[in-house]
Amino acid sequence: MAIYFDNAATTPLLPEVKEVMIDIINHEYGNPSSIHMMGRVAKTIVERSRKTIANIIKSAVGEIFFTSGATESNNLILQKSFETLGIKRYISSPLEHHCVLHTLEYMAKKGCEVHYLNVDSQGHIDLNELEQLLESSEQETLVSIMHGNNELGNVVDIGSVGALCKVHGALFHTDTAQTMGKLEIDAHAMHIDFLTGSAHKFYGPKGIGFVFINGDHKLEPMLLGGSQERNMRSGTENVICIAGMAKALEVSYAQRSTWQSHIFELKTALRSGILEAVPGIQVLGTEDSALHHILSVSFPQSAKSDLMEVNLDMAGVYASAGSACSSGTLKASHVMEAIKADATRKTVRFSLSHMNTIEEVNQVIQVLRR
Amino acid sequence: MAIYFDNAATTPLLPEVKEVMIDIINHEYGNPSSIHMMGRVAKTIVERSRKTIANIIKSAVGEIFFTSGATESNNLILQKSFETLGIKRYISSPLEHHCVLHTLEYMAKKGCEVHYLNVDSQGHIDLNELEQLLESSEQETLVSIMHGNNELGNVVDIGSVGALCKVHGALFHTDTAQTMGKLEIDAHAMHIDFLTGSAHKFYGPKGIGFVFINGDHKLEPMLLGGSQERNMRSGTENVICIAGMAKALEVSYAQRSTWQSHIFELKTALRSGILEAVPGIQVLGTEDSALHHILSVSFPQSAKSDLMEVNLDMAGVYASAGSACSSGTLKASHVMEAIKADATRKTVRFSLSHMNTIEEVNQVIQVLRR
Repeated sequence: MAIYFDNAATTPLLPEVKEVMIDIINHEYGNPSSIHMMGRVAKTIVERSRKTIANIIKSAVGEIFFTSGATESNNLILQKSFETLGIKRYISSPLEHHCVLHTLEYMAKKGCEVHYLNVDSQGHIDLNELEQLLESSEQETLVSIMHGNNELGNVVDIGSVGALCKVHGALFHTDTAQTMGKLEIDAHAMHIDFLTGSAHKFYGPKGIGFVFINGDHKLEPMLLGGSQERNMRSGTENVICIAGMAKALEVSYAQRSTWQSHIFELKTALRSGILEAVPGIQVLGTEDSALHHILSVSFPQSAKSDLMEVNLDMAGVYASAGSACSSGTLKASHVMEAIKADATRKTVRFSLSHMNTIEEVNQVIQVLRR
Repeated sequence: MAIYFDNAATTPLLPEVKEVMIDIINHEYGNPSSIHMMGRVAKTIVERSRKTIANIIKSAVGEIFFTSGATESNNLILQKSFETLGIKRYISSPLEHHCVLHTLEYMAKKGCEVHYLNVDSQGHIDLNELEQLLESSEQETLVSIMHGNNELGNVVDIGSVGALCKVHGALFHTDTAQTMGKLEIDAHAMHIDFLTGSAHKFYGPKGIGFVFINGDHKLEPMLLGGSQERNMRSGTENVICIAGMAKALEVSYAQRSTWQSHIFELKTALRSGILEAVPGIQVLGTEDSALHHILSVSFPQSAKSDLMEVNLDMAGVYASAGSACSSGTLKASHVMEAIKADATRKTVRFSLSHMNTIEEVNQVIQVLRR
């Protein structure tokens, strides 16, 4: 038995994505910067991919830049907005991914003011506090709030955050790693200045991502060199992975309603099955706005729950005891600390995909019952 | 007819590389940071790849870090050596790739002293000047000199440069994009502190590379986040491309002598054929130490030579009018400017691989004759 319930950590490639990538592996190898025919073919693959992504978030084609993933994209925005847009203050939340939080710590060392909004025990971010902070100071501010939380599954109404930022003249950056391809995003209508996405969270390859930079802003690049991405991000383009990412987003976005219904059914069954099977279990995160593919639960402390992830692993059930990026280190999750979760309890995140089945859900419930 | 003579811009994937990448595409998708079995399988692929690369440049496994390519690697070393190792002066040459030169311009804006060594008309770098500069100042210095030049094919004796740096307490960084897998490199014996490589120059995929950081140095990362690469480079690893890169380097390095002999024969035939076919043509670069796969020639000004690259393209011959990264822009090459090449003449770089044949060489000579 092998049940993959860790789709918030990374996802399998879609068959259509495999096909596109293997086709390029077998047939194309030009450098998109070469002006001869082989280069132009590669360039066309890159530019078509850019158009696909731009269409989905309703941006201009020239507002999309390819990077090595959400981590690079988030570092670029947070580091360079200070250096080139004169940002003096960052407002974020303690629930962000480490690639945002650790970069903000770095910005604080550089002398920036960094403010983390209060969160409650369900992980709601205090947007009243955000409004007060924005009203209280005229300092050049960038607000960085993720769209969907990777550990709790909470969804933030980024349209409201964007509108609030716009009213107060602050810039708005959002990490959409967990929501891209799953929820509708209209970059301009939501007043988003900077948005980042990562292919391997929406059934594309690892090590490739993108950043949307609102055309009104002239950010300086972090990687300097050969003028790729219209000088915004140098380095020969990862043609194979860029094409795979665009195909992954195209298919995910087209199928999002169908997949969402299926995944939500699985999550509902998993949720009620676990609640019934394991005494004292708690479901984490907000009840009012949750991602359909993430279910985080916390087990009461016991000899068995301490070894929960290992036992699940041995039973062929692949889930996560935290976000994938930090789970390797086995440290307590910063998100659980932020919502003041009981540290004696053991958290497990199950994250589902359209490829999962109700039979798998039932098997996992049986394993947990043991 | 399609003849690819642009292997210094980018190379085709080796059959063995395609196989490895397609196998992972079809069978593996775990996140190397996940601690369950699927993650451990992915982690093993990444760590085996690291070992392959470390063995080839005779470094410790822990001195190799994966990045999105040589551009990112070079930016990391040049930007962060200032910020975290206290480098105050950079010594380089005007023949470096734009990802080094543009980053050095950026460092100069940050207040660093940047010195470009003199070069002669063949592209020899003045190493006496380097020695004088190193002797003249006790300032914390990093020397950045590429191993093989991408436009001229010149090879620098990096062992001597490394030894010179060591004697004078300077750090030595070398971009080996054009030589990795082709020439032998012993990172420690050559006193190299930092070395960068890019997979797509040695028959691996684009968008992946690595950096060697001598274990004596504690550099801070440029990309902050999820602790990947032992905190040196965050972001989920591009497992498919990392495995492809390692396989590409393994095969290239194992075959280097055989391939070099074949490619050198082709280059010799191409060189003498062109010299005989085109009156007034000149071969660029050094005669004493040239890479076997690069032949840069300069045509006398004429209506035909102005359209040289376009005409070659139309004839199905893919070569480059400069380095790939800047050729898309059709600006005069900074390397040609540095060696004070006659700006009225037209430069074309032919760069060969073991996949090319003597028949292709003869066809190209015929095209040039017309």
